[in-house]
Amino acid sequence: MANERIYNFSAGPSMLPLEVLEKAGSEITNFGGSGMSVMEMSHRSKVFLSIFEETKADFKRLFHVPDEYEVLFLGGGATLQFAMTAMNLITRTGKADYAITGNFAKKAYEEGSKYGECRIAASTADCNHTRIPKQDELKIGSDASYFYYTANNTIYGTEWNYTPVVPENVPIVCDMSSDILSRPVDVSKYGIIFAGAQKNMAPAGVTVVIIRKDLAGNALPYTPIMLDYAAMIKGDSMHNTPPCWNIYMLGLVLKWLEKQGGVEGMQAVKHGKAQLLYDFIDNSKLYKCAVQPDSRSDMNVVFTTGDAELDKKFAAESSKAGMSNLNGHRSVGGMRASIYNAMPIEGVKYLIEFMKKFETENG
Amino acid sequence: MANERIYNFSAGPSMLPLEVLEKAGSEITNFGGSGMSVMEMSHRSKVFLSIFEETKADFKRLFHVPDEYEVLFLGGGATLQFAMTAMNLITRTGKADYAITGNFAKKAYEEGSKYGECRIAASTADCNHTRIPKQDELKIGSDASYFYYTANNTIYGTEWNYTPVVPENVPIVCDMSSDILSRPVDVSKYGIIFAGAQKNMAPAGVTVVIIRKDLAGNALPYTPIMLDYAAMIKGDSMHNTPPCWNIYMLGLVLKWLEKQGGVEGMQAVKHGKAQLLYDFIDNSKLYKCAVQPDSRSDMNVVFTTGDAELDKKFAAESSKAGMSNLNGHRSVGGMRASIYNAMPIEGVKYLIEFMKKFETENG
Repeated sequence: MANERIYNFSAGPSMLPLEVLEKAGSEITNFGGSGMSVMEMSHRSKVFLSIFEETKADFKRLFHVPDEYEVLFLGGGATLQFAMTAMNLITRTGKADYAITGNFAKKAYEEGSKYGECRIAASTADCNHTRIPKQDELKIGSDASYFYYTANNTIYGTEWNYTPVVPENVPIVCDMSSDILSRPVDVSKYGIIFAGAQKNMAPAGVTVVIIRKDLAGNALPYTPIMLDYAAMIKGDSMHNTPPCWNIYMLGLVLKWLEKQGGVEGMQAVKHGKAQLLYDFIDNSKLYKCAVQPDSRSDMNVVFTTGDAELDKKFAAESSKAGMSNLNGHRSVGGMRASIYNAMPIEGVKYLIEFMKKFETENG
Repeated sequence: MANERIYNFSAGPSMLPLEVLEKAGSEITNFGGSGMSVMEMSHRSKVFLSIFEETKADFKRLFHVPDEYEVLFLGGGATLQFAMTAMNLITRTGKADYAITGNFAKKAYEEGSKYGECRIAASTADCNHTRIPKQDELKIGSDASYFYYTANNTIYGTEWNYTPVVPENVPIVCDMSSDILSRPVDVSKYGIIFAGAQKNMAPAGVTVVIIRKDLAGNALPYTPIMLDYAAMIKGDSMHNTPPCWNIYMLGLVLKWLEKQGGVEGMQAVKHGKAQLLYDFIDNSKLYKCAVQPDSRSDMNVVFTTGDAELDKKFAAESSKAGMSNLNGHRSVGGMRASIYNAMPIEGVKYLIEFMKKFETENG
């Protein structure tokens, strides 16, 4: 069955390592002699708590999370974090600055604006988000409660290749949903990093939050308790029942990641994987990538033939050739190859061979 | 492996039908020839949408949900619904009435009180929640934006055996986390029914909300978009990526439920299952159940020997005998047997045999 699997280029939810799925399948009715599935375990049982603690410890170690930070496993997705970050942090000055580099950054800015004065530190809307702003374009006030940006923009295929410098005491809030665990990050430069799991980490339904502990405890008075980081820290992500299976799957992915050399190992291959594709596109006559070279994402490679009909044909034929989800986001069209951690280089090479053939036949 | 499984009496997360787990395991690397796991599917893909639509249709059919209601699959758990119900419904009059029958009802009342004037319609705190209030004890104002109650109280082992009558135009909001799908419900009597999945439905991480559609659209202005029912209805639970695997598992459980005769089939067995246990306890010299007979839960049977040391011994020895999680909630002590839909009657009989033996040895 496994060898009938296809190369899934979905922007998320997306591929998981086959060995992780096989491991999960092998213990789905009886985990480690417990007599039950992880899906059936009380979250307060010893057997689940050991999964939970190990996953949290592995995450901290592999992502190099300093001691003054807490790692939380929450529900509701990254979109809930758009509100949660603001409801917890904006009380310091009532103001915050956002870099608008795409759809999700804009949504975060709109959510934040419900809770205080959110300002635009920079926007790339004028060039349809085909680039990342440079440091000297960022207007970040020293009165900002925080500065917010989206590390990787899945729809537009852009990724920040630097950590912004901010005024003293302004914490950085970063949505790393689509490039977390693909490279080492200096967590100490951030106030809050959050990431929905379904691109690089685990099945949809759990969101990882890394928060500098001293930032919690300042939520707006009408904040739901599930959206108050202080309560989530106090309950160690178990104020209520957490998404146990998703946390277990994350744990399995982290074991796999460790075997790949951790985030350092991932960094060593991910840029090469993306560069193969960008080089091919840049040297081709049929395909174009509109994204400025210094802003290109290693996770989501967007390209087009420039002909909507031909793009459609590409999506249909690639699907027949055993690859899925190569169509671009409905808001921008074209094609998109999402090549997260679990996409093997063989998948990228297979795609390039297909692109060559398609170009010969349609060029 | 399957026959080494144990009888898991956990209050939640809790047992799932073995055939459901085996089915999920059999297609965990390749669902229905799609070449991928359900955990890897884009939530907007045809293959996942067909799972989603079928699950929703099965739920509506089996639970007899009228057309004017929407069924939502959300993240964040029931505790997030404590805030969400209030933030969306309390705007009508600024007031709401709550029946306090246990821990979770009290938490819901506390969350609701952040958003308006929440009043206590009835409380059973004076008798340590060992009974459900009667209709004539409920003080529900005609100026209430809604009346709120918890259908089944897992910690205290009580369950409402009637649907409260409320003043005209006051919608009922009900937390059915621990007895949903165990019996037919006249949904038309309710405004909102919600339930965390991890007791009777699916692995933790998805919450089912059944909402009368005309009640949506009145959220407080600062409501996070993920907590606005109108946005969730508009996006058909996909404003952002939903917990796809959990929804798929719910779908498998619903297929199983249908084979058991649906909620009618469940109702036919669940009361008998519980009554076996209550009858044994009431006729025993060692065990006592403090809950008033007309208020006893068919889902969570609480009992004690009256001796904390002996209760501890019971928990330890029952665990060695292949049963888990029979200890009571940490806040009340004693024992608790949670016997949701997936607990076979053989499990209840096995427990009673053990209880007999334990009584002989320790009575």
